[in-house]
Amino acid sequence: MEDSRDARFAAQETALGYSFEGELKIGGNYVSTVRHGDVVYVSGQVPRVGSTVVVTGRVGADVSLAQAQLAAKVCAMRALVLLRQSLGGLDRIQQILRVTVYTQSAADFSQQSEVADAASDLLHAVLGGAGTHTRTSVGVAQLPKNAAVELDLIAAVTPG
Amino acid sequence: MEDSRDARFAAQETALGYSFEGELKIGGNYVSTVRHGDVVYVSGQVPRVGSTVVVTGRVGADVSLAQAQLAAKVCAMRALVLLRQSLGGLDRIQQILRVTVYTQSAADFSQQSEVADAASDLLHAVLGGAGTHTRTSVGVAQLPKNAAVELDLIAAVTPG
Amino acid sequence: MEDSRDARFAAQETALGYSFEGELKIGGNYVSTVRHGDVVYVSGQVPRVGSTVVVTGRVGADVSLAQAQLAAKVCAMRALVLLRQSLGGLDRIQQILRVTVYTQSAADFSQQSEVADAASDLLHAVLGGAGTHTRTSVGVAQLPKNAAVELDLIAAVTPG
Repeated sequence: MEDSRDARFAAQETALGYSFEGELKIGGNYVSTVRHGDVVYVSGQVPRVGSTVVVTGRVGADVSLAQAQLAAKVCAMRALVLLRQSLGGLDRIQQILRVTVYTQSAADFSQQSEVADAASDLLHAVLGGAGTHTRTSVGVAQLPKNAAVELDLIAAVTPG
Repeated sequence: MEDSRDARFAAQETALGYSFEGELKIGGNYVSTVRHGDVVYVSGQVPRVGSTVVVTGRVGADVSLAQAQLAAKVCAMRALVLLRQSLGGLDRIQQILRVTVYTQSAADFSQQSEVADAASDLLHAVLGGAGTHTRTSVGVAQLPKNAAVELDLIAAVTPG
Repeated sequence: MEDSRDARFAAQETALGYSFEGELKIGGNYVSTVRHGDVVYVSGQVPRVGSTVVVTGRVGADVSLAQAQLAAKVCAMRALVLLRQSLGGLDRIQQILRVTVYTQSAADFSQQSEVADAASDLLHAVLGGAGTHTRTSVGVAQLPKNAAVELDLIAAVTPG
């Protein structure tokens, strides 16, 4: 991978067909990222683009595996945007330590790992080896705003 | 906020109408808090006061949003009690890093963020800026003892 | 406990009747463990032995509490195997910091803590005081490969 992380991020943005410019303000008494030492926590992300959650509903019933994988990618892109905003650039990400992927699941849908693979692949595509992480994938009853997928993560930061 | 964190904790206790004195012994081969360096992990808390889980059932079916928000506040108070016990005082909390809020959710209940807001607001009310945190809110199928809400957290500690 | 951790691990292996030799390769763009400083994150483990998930289905419906407890133990054993592989030996585990246990739960099954107790007991049996941890137990709608239980953890490592 010769390109920069920024170039690979932009390529993913194009492939998804969504823009993540000017994104990701939240209100309330919580924040999108908190840094402690060289570790950054990123809040749970639903697949929102602008003001719209782009994939809603229950995977395995209203939502296909392919749509859920798209949702997981959008969640991962949002997490990257937040890390970029927080750190000043994607190159400051030393390693993604932990990713948890929650999929709103029909009673008989058990491909949560396949949903999460889409997020893992995206993180690796943009960050290379720094995007390799531990992961937990679970199927949940519901998610905020009826989102199909939610993803949170913890990352280590290069001193800068 | 001119008052001490202890005073603000007591004000929340009064507002909720529950006492958290003499609380929070658990048995078994796990513990309520573990400290590693300047990070403290707090076990998942259900809205128990004394020996009673005060809000049980499925939010969006048996349990209203307002009741779930009460449950989230009780969970957050318990986490604060545990941090206070573990650290010797609330002033030792440098920053809440991560809060995860699990809401036992009816199939069509998607206000998990609004449930979690009650916990976030309480943490901010007691701790001020140190209570600002990253957050993940999910809707789950069930919780221990049929609790409506469960909350865990990770906090950073001021060297003391 | 006079025996070594390795001996106690082997005793648990015998008691469970499963072998964990040659285990635990995964593909894809995520990994089983990531170490950062003296903290190791372990990916979510389902109760797989070899290529078989040994306890599948919904606890409280298809799966009994006792079967779910067996599943939780197998998950915990897998996490120990991964830590041993990653660190070079179980003696390098300084403290288990956080365990999260997800139980695929029937609508009215609320003994998630009792399921998780089996994992906590096993960690304590093998690691002694180093196995004491904070814990979160939740009941989820589904899990990868229809697993009855999934467990992830975070551990602190002795410099070695």
